Amino acid sequence: MAVRVAVAGASGYAGGEVLRLLAGHPEVEIGAVTANSNAGQLLGALQPHLLPLAGRVLQETTAEVLAGHDVVFLALPHGQSAAVAEQLGGDVLVVDMGADFRLRDAADWERFYGSPHAGTWPYGLPELPGARAALAGTKRIAVPGCYPTAVSLALAPAYAGALAEPDAVIVAASGTSGAGKAPKPHLLGSEVMGSMTPYGVGGGHRHTPEIVQNLSEVAGEKVTVSFTPTLAPMPRGILATCSAKARPGVGAAEVRAAYEKAYADEPFVHLLPEGQWPATASVYGSNAVHLQVAYDEAAGRVIAIGAIDNLAKGTAGGALQSMNIALGLPETTGLSAIGVAP
Amino acid sequence: MAVRVAVAGASGYAGGEVLRLLAGHPEVEIGAVTANSNAGQLLGALQPHLLPLAGRVLQETTAEVLAGHDVVFLALPHGQSAAVAEQLGGDVLVVDMGADFRLRDAADWERFYGSPHAGTWPYGLPELPGARAALAGTKRIAVPGCYPTAVSLALAPAYAGALAEPDAVIVAASGTSGAGKAPKPHLLGSEVMGSMTPYGVGGGHRHTPEIVQNLSEVAGEKVTVSFTPTLAPMPRGILATCSAKARPGVGAAEVRAAYEKAYADEPFVHLLPEGQWPATASVYGSNAVHLQVAYDEAAGRVIAIGAIDNLAKGTAGGALQSMNIALGLPETTGLSAIGVAP
Amino acid sequence: MAVRVAVAGASGYAGGEVLRLLAGHPEVEIGAVTANSNAGQLLGALQPHLLPLAGRVLQETTAEVLAGHDVVFLALPHGQSAAVAEQLGGDVLVVDMGADFRLRDAADWERFYGSPHAGTWPYGLPELPGARAALAGTKRIAVPGCYPTAVSLALAPAYAGALAEPDAVIVAASGTSGAGKAPKPHLLGSEVMGSMTPYGVGGGHRHTPEIVQNLSEVAGEKVTVSFTPTLAPMPRGILATCSAKARPGVGAAEVRAAYEKAYADEPFVHLLPEGQWPATASVYGSNAVHLQVAYDEAAGRVIAIGAIDNLAKGTAGGALQSMNIALGLPETTGLSAIGVAP
Amino acid sequence: MAVRVAVAGASGYAGGEVLRLLAGHPEVEIGAVTANSNAGQLLGALQPHLLPLAGRVLQETTAEVLAGHDVVFLALPHGQSAAVAEQLGGDVLVVDMGADFRLRDAADWERFYGSPHAGTWPYGLPELPGARAALAGTKRIAVPGCYPTAVSLALAPAYAGALAEPDAVIVAASGTSGAGKAPKPHLLGSEVMGSMTPYGVGGGHRHTPEIVQNLSEVAGEKVTVSFTPTLAPMPRGILATCSAKARPGVGAAEVRAAYEKAYADEPFVHLLPEGQWPATASVYGSNAVHLQVAYDEAAGRVIAIGAIDNLAKGTAGGALQSMNIALGLPETTGLSAIGVAP
Repeated sequence: MAVRVAVAGASGYAGGEVLRLLAGHPEVEIGAVTANSNAGQLLGALQPHLLPLAGRVLQETTAEVLAGHDVVFLALPHGQSAAVAEQLGGDVLVVDMGADFRLRDAADWERFYGSPHAGTWPYGLPELPGARAALAGTKRIAVPGCYPTAVSLALAPAYAGALAEPDAVIVAASGTSGAGKAPKPHLLGSEVMGSMTPYGVGGGHRHTPEIVQNLSEVAGEKVTVSFTPTLAPMPRGILATCSAKARPGVGAAEVRAAYEKAYADEPFVHLLPEGQWPATASVYGSNAVHLQVAYDEAAGRVIAIGAIDNLAKGTAGGALQSMNIALGLPETTGLSAIGVAP
Repeated sequence: MAVRVAVAGASGYAGGEVLRLLAGHPEVEIGAVTANSNAGQLLGALQPHLLPLAGRVLQETTAEVLAGHDVVFLALPHGQSAAVAEQLGGDVLVVDMGADFRLRDAADWERFYGSPHAGTWPYGLPELPGARAALAGTKRIAVPGCYPTAVSLALAPAYAGALAEPDAVIVAASGTSGAGKAPKPHLLGSEVMGSMTPYGVGGGHRHTPEIVQNLSEVAGEKVTVSFTPTLAPMPRGILATCSAKARPGVGAAEVRAAYEKAYADEPFVHLLPEGQWPATASVYGSNAVHLQVAYDEAAGRVIAIGAIDNLAKGTAGGALQSMNIALGLPETTGLSAIGVAP
Repeated sequence: MAVRVAVAGASGYAGGEVLRLLAGHPEVEIGAVTANSNAGQLLGALQPHLLPLAGRVLQETTAEVLAGHDVVFLALPHGQSAAVAEQLGGDVLVVDMGADFRLRDAADWERFYGSPHAGTWPYGLPELPGARAALAGTKRIAVPGCYPTAVSLALAPAYAGALAEPDAVIVAASGTSGAGKAPKPHLLGSEVMGSMTPYGVGGGHRHTPEIVQNLSEVAGEKVTVSFTPTLAPMPRGILATCSAKARPGVGAAEVRAAYEKAYADEPFVHLLPEGQWPATASVYGSNAVHLQVAYDEAAGRVIAIGAIDNLAKGTAGGALQSMNIALGLPETTGLSAIGVAP
Repeated sequence: MAVRVAVAGASGYAGGEVLRLLAGHPEVEIGAVTANSNAGQLLGALQPHLLPLAGRVLQETTAEVLAGHDVVFLALPHGQSAAVAEQLGGDVLVVDMGADFRLRDAADWERFYGSPHAGTWPYGLPELPGARAALAGTKRIAVPGCYPTAVSLALAPAYAGALAEPDAVIVAASGTSGAGKAPKPHLLGSEVMGSMTPYGVGGGHRHTPEIVQNLSEVAGEKVTVSFTPTLAPMPRGILATCSAKARPGVGAAEVRAAYEKAYADEPFVHLLPEGQWPATASVYGSNAVHLQVAYDEAAGRVIAIGAIDNLAKGTAGGALQSMNIALGLPETTGLSAIGVAP
């Protein structure tokens, strides 16, 4: 019997992407699709690429509409998920693609989001140590942020293996869909095409504490993070360039071996052959993570670079992967490691 | 038992796309993948997005390598398919994604390609009148050109219904993958980003006779065509803007009705609701055709605009769709009408 | 003594571009720069590329602020120019970059803009027959629309020479800056990158009557126009593909000769050598028009294709060129025919 | 009397850009333009944006052709400049836009370029301490690499003021024109659009020793550098994100003050107001450098981010600026700090 799934916030980019993937998931039946200001409109008017769903009418995001589903995906502005989740009851699997339940430290939440902390749910990055056990059978999933997904997977083997000093420097480029669908002047095509620009510099980006949380947990000690996100002229994709000083005695061979071992059995995280570097185009639309790692002898640094699709593995694909685990389905069901290129 | 499929010319864009789609086709097993100058290399080095196939070694394109498959896709430079097909024997389904067997008029072929005509195979555009019957059970398929796919589907209802004069004006924009993967200066990213430019103006493009052939067959009389292709700064997609004078007495209602009727039961060709126009982004990576039609009263013209993915429905997706028909599989097997957007 | 110039509407794309060009004009001194909702802000916050003007404060668009200048450029939403112009008095040169004073037919204006017609000013497309005489010494200039600039210059020689039937089909691709800086969902970078899409199909675009007006005047008879604009994934540039049936007896030689003669002495309109086609990238940031023309014998059509920068020659550059004529300065002062490429 | 200038290597991107700028330089007369494989062709066929120079014929790059000019710009593949320069004699100003004469350490040259070191010329980055004195009156100029220009200007104040530890981490994104005009598969538009990808990771990029040289000279001690370049989907522009640990006692105020002071009188290097970040689009086509700096307290790092146009300030604009100094002309002659945006 099919798993019945609802999507709240179906008119935005995360909601659209989760619907794109759910439509190809063999065990799932798509139930209610909801929105706020766009309620009442046809999905086809807002998400014309979802052709088979074009005739669906967006309903209002209410507990009544969302009731009666086995799984509810929330693609809501931060701060709104807790209230909805509470009304859904404990037997519904709630997958929050927003930020509300990612952080464990309430002070971190309050400093970066300026509102009371709603709580912490099992963290939906299955490839991190211990994550799958926490996700199995859960009824609540906090889907990671897109940058933390790319960065954590790129640096986890270095910190799990104690290869690098707990002081990471990360510069990441993201496609514009990461900034959402609400129209703002700096996100206009006229502004972003042909332009690279940083934002949230100096530790201000809200994904910073999430990255610190993940790396520190893997390292077993507090990892300091300098994180600079940049906006790149492409609709999708994150390229995260991450580095840290190598610990004494660590060289290229140790680094390579640790990364090979860490992801040898992962279906979606792929360490490229030596000499081949990740490109965001290669993971377009897919759940794959392309990784490469190098040891820079002159600088004494481990450099790990990962490419993901911010909407797929970085949001909706990661969400489905965790849903599969929570429901006891094969983890790769309905997900592809093949990108759409060129 | 799985259908065993080989792909000749797997290092280019058409070959890569057919592999991307075959990898998701439930009835298919991918056998040999071949190339010419790239033989011996890992597929992953040339098509890194095809992650699960990354370890495949490209073999040489020979009859021995291609033997023993149920289906062979040819993604070869024009002029090379006939020789390969001959060696494969009549019980193998050969799907030619090149131009060699599309035209019925040998003189047209010789004028536009400058070499002897190899012949004519059943034409793989199932949505054209009579096409499905010719494809059922066939062992030879000529996959249409990308522009002819978009243009023919956009104008067929107008000509099938005798709504328009046999004199069409077509301006189409294509993404750069349509020009292939062989590096040429005018295809460099530095040149194409931020630029629109025409080519093959004045009837010189090789897809012109194929468009004339299709429209004339649908119209039952010779249709004159002015076709101007343009290169657009995007990797994929064709937007074909097609128009012709309306015949006397034809108005907006007749036009709309004819298009609604023509494609009402087609799984991949979709007439958008009135007021909504096709965008190539909406069909990115999909087998869908988004169409809209208008009647311009002041100019007295029927205007039909279609969007496709040139590599998917315009090449490899169309090829799989025709293969399904030829093999007696459900036509939509392994194909999606959902695009990857934004 | 320097010509003192004010720019009203300096926070938008047309206003920014006119400031960019004025800053390089040797006879001009930039006076007041004004805005509406952005008044009070630093120009540098809104137009960071205009570095030497970054410290200028945007003033409110009032008659007091604009008084005391020799020239006032208006980059205002349509419908607002008449009121401002009236207050400026007849000795000030007012250059309206909006649509208000372009059309001669009040009924056309009302049908396409839905408001009373404000009047008609000398039309700032110097390369059209008779235009320079009307601009010399004038105190009022209506700057043409960007599409009409490209289309009119592409087709004028064909109609001036009676080479083509009065029934033109035009498909034009524009960069997104033509749609302005007000943020709308369909103009987001995420939406436009990788996408081509038409709009205003079927004669609905407001530039249609302006194109009809220009071509009809050159032809000496009413020219019917089918005009389809499309949005292309680039910030700037228009590529206009224009065609019409050749009149009986007209062939390639007549067409080429007419175009060579028409623009032989024009400093900004350039007929490319045979075989070379215009690309919008080649005119990026410049006042140049790159043109090519062909005669398609099979289709019996004259095909003229022009490339301009919609903000430069298509708006602000054309405005400066006309200003130069009106002020009695050399027409090319402060304008360049060199584009920024690649 | 005009300065007579020749450009060797005029068919490439650097050569084209220096011609674009020279055409607008009021003291210069453009003499010979030369090429190698493209000799004999019209410049207009290869650089159609340089409209007023379209009729120039590319000559062969020989000493005879280049003789009789006051200034010769060399835009040649590395390793070829020395031989040409030798033949030109000591009274000609030779401006080498290649790498041959940038490095002072012959061993560095040989390690990164694999050929004998040709020598060291005065380094054309006027904003570095002492650079202007070395350039005044010189007859030989080594134009800096594009990345070293952006990175050195971004970090110089931090090292000149001893604000940062001598251990820098740099991640820079470059437009594709930095990779030149020779067609290679990975530079095709189909490959680069929508993609971010690193290259030369781990210290392998040839600009690394040049960056080390510049920063070490400013710091007065050896600076270790981790440099990761990435290819971004845009034709032009470099965004360099640079950081280093702050020295003990250094805070946000010291950092801001040092940067304000360092560039207060520079015509082309502009520290943006606090809270505004550089975007490559803002410097498109201009000689400006947009900079911003931050102190990340949690990470203890100084973060300096600079945006330049790699072909303008990063190559040809920087070359003209240095030429002006060498010739005793005002430094900003023929150069603009205004970008073409959007």
